[in-house]
Amino acid sequence: MCKSPRMTISLDDLADNLEKVRAESPLVHNITNYVVMNFSANVLLAAGASPVMAHAVEEVAEMVEIAGALVLNIGTLERSWNESMRVAAKAARLRERPIVLDPVGAGATPFRTHTALNLLEESPPAILRGNASEILALGNKVGQTRGVDSLVESSAAEETARELARTFHTVVVVSGPVDYIVSADRTLRLRNGHSLMARVTGTGCACSALCGAFAAVEPDPFLAAAAAMATASLAGELAAEKASGPGSFAVAFLDELASLKRTGFARLRMD
Amino acid sequence: MCKSPRMTISLDDLADNLEKVRAESPLVHNITNYVVMNFSANVLLAAGASPVMAHAVEEVAEMVEIAGALVLNIGTLERSWNESMRVAAKAARLRERPIVLDPVGAGATPFRTHTALNLLEESPPAILRGNASEILALGNKVGQTRGVDSLVESSAAEETARELARTFHTVVVVSGPVDYIVSADRTLRLRNGHSLMARVTGTGCACSALCGAFAAVEPDPFLAAAAAMATASLAGELAAEKASGPGSFAVAFLDELASLKRTGFARLRMD
Amino acid sequence: MCKSPRMTISLDDLADNLEKVRAESPLVHNITNYVVMNFSANVLLAAGASPVMAHAVEEVAEMVEIAGALVLNIGTLERSWNESMRVAAKAARLRERPIVLDPVGAGATPFRTHTALNLLEESPPAILRGNASEILALGNKVGQTRGVDSLVESSAAEETARELARTFHTVVVVSGPVDYIVSADRTLRLRNGHSLMARVTGTGCACSALCGAFAAVEPDPFLAAAAAMATASLAGELAAEKASGPGSFAVAFLDELASLKRTGFARLRMD
Repeated sequence: MCKSPRMTISLDDLADNLEKVRAESPLVHNITNYVVMNFSANVLLAAGASPVMAHAVEEVAEMVEIAGALVLNIGTLERSWNESMRVAAKAARLRERPIVLDPVGAGATPFRTHTALNLLEESPPAILRGNASEILALGNKVGQTRGVDSLVESSAAEETARELARTFHTVVVVSGPVDYIVSADRTLRLRNGHSLMARVTGTGCACSALCGAFAAVEPDPFLAAAAAMATASLAGELAAEKASGPGSFAVAFLDELASLKRTGFARLRMD
Repeated sequence: MCKSPRMTISLDDLADNLEKVRAESPLVHNITNYVVMNFSANVLLAAGASPVMAHAVEEVAEMVEIAGALVLNIGTLERSWNESMRVAAKAARLRERPIVLDPVGAGATPFRTHTALNLLEESPPAILRGNASEILALGNKVGQTRGVDSLVESSAAEETARELARTFHTVVVVSGPVDYIVSADRTLRLRNGHSLMARVTGTGCACSALCGAFAAVEPDPFLAAAAAMATASLAGELAAEKASGPGSFAVAFLDELASLKRTGFARLRMD
Repeated sequence: MCKSPRMTISLDDLADNLEKVRAESPLVHNITNYVVMNFSANVLLAAGASPVMAHAVEEVAEMVEIAGALVLNIGTLERSWNESMRVAAKAARLRERPIVLDPVGAGATPFRTHTALNLLEESPPAILRGNASEILALGNKVGQTRGVDSLVESSAAEETARELARTFHTVVVVSGPVDYIVSADRTLRLRNGHSLMARVTGTGCACSALCGAFAAVEPDPFLAAAAAMATASLAGELAAEKASGPGSFAVAFLDELASLKRTGFARLRMD
């Protein structure tokens, strides 16, 4: 499912991807945590996608089938939800729907780390998105996770991300002040966004949801992940210019996602 | 429970209903989906009602008893929640509390369609509110549901809505760009609202919650449904004038719900 | 765990506490209700703390261990969640992490009252925060709870609060238009805040979450509770000056929490 990434990604490639999301409005099936369900759904709608949240084991396989992508997020995991995630992930692999895995809090407790690793191994995702602590934990490296926040820089997780990318044939996004998009053989760094993004719960989870929307319309998961992260960080940067604090930032973030233009991508700082 | 609807509904009737909600502040018991719980509660509070969310089978019957209405929403259904909805619905019928049923995603998976039909048949609601796809699915008609969004016009579901209204002695609301309020023998169309309402998750679910608030204070469910939908679509229209996108729209929608005046009903376009 | 409260609390003590929360950014472990999870997390982030929501019985004890405080809230209780709360509370007592208990809706149904009393008795919290109805219900007094809203004034619950404070060696916060912070031998009244706080779902729950953040950095639970309630009510008062209704109020509340200054405490009306 994971094609070789293009060797160069242009601003046009990224902007084209956002236009595809808006034109095709892909259905994104989320099995995600309670805290961010509303915000993730609103982020997907703002970006032009169509969200559905469904976790009952009786319906997840059928829901995946009508969806363009599956987003799994273990933020408020529990056993029955984990089982639904496994069933949904297997159905997604069978039907060739791209999976995005967000290992929220991996490293904070063994239950989280094991659940995330189990999903990763059993049904490798097209895109794995986490913060540096979570990615380090999945690579069995000692990071410092505190709850669901990372205390280490994204750069510290780049090599672990590459190992995971190689082992699981996946694209790994390490998000933080600088976002790293990492495949087996290359790294793209995005230097946009704003510190207010870390003051609103669920911006990371929303980035994972966006990765799902973009992966539903773009077969190259490296490009899809880059376009999703670029879109989120540009919207964050523009929103911060209008915000008076984290409350108004979250509101403006949704507005900016909905109104982001091709010309907005000129602000991207990537290498 | 479903009285014959009045043959004519005036703007004053609708505005009177909103004032009753504000004056009586009815307790509305919601068993609803995770995505919209917060927004539904805030919509009810903004309109002047008092929300309570409770789903434990141990307490739903008692909660219904102290509430003025029960709102059931299958957006993130699972077996144990469905069982609580059944218990609560039976208690509501026994105590003559009006029920509002929102069959979110009926038609998307058999589990959803069956769950909604089962609730509809076992404890017919005073008001059934869905989008056109959902209503068609409950009438066993082929609509096109994609996840939780409708891809068909409300008008296409009017006849199915009437059949459901006759079979289950209920009032059916088919919401969309034009809202249809349908009983066994009449239809009211509301042509207000704004396209931004479809860009915020849970506006439909919030309309169902409002139907509950209005049904708690108004014994005629046709009038209650009309007043709830009129209130929501007016607030949506006013909010859109102040919004820069879906984020600020959701905020303004709550503000407008709280400040909507009698004179605001003059904007209503109904037939 | 509950030290004797200082006999006098100055504005500087309260402002110092907020600065400690911002400086230490304590991890606050919440097992709370679905309706307010997102808002509580955003309130904690805005105040400078670091929220984590985790309810799986497999991990709550470990999560408590890395957290600075545990916040239990029974707003959307169900049996399995109650069991996780019990396990987490025992672990918190063992590890000497302060517990905050929010008995949402106690008095509305026996299931709620019993669950809250059981938690209170089995693992007494450092801080118990509720509205007057809930506190009266826990004291086995006849209040008037309607759903999750109180219909009685905070002052009516002061004596019951003191009895509970004595019995369980806890600090009791009775919130309302006037907030009472009550220990075995003293009462502090805070007369700030704004009526819009009651028009947004979860402001009470968010106060409990803030009590957790402050108790994580301040060993005197009376002072911690006072500082948390002062911070929330000041932010509410400042937010109301900028709000056009409950939607914009909730947004401004988060902004004000993040920007509240030492000088802002001069507005406090306490006795």
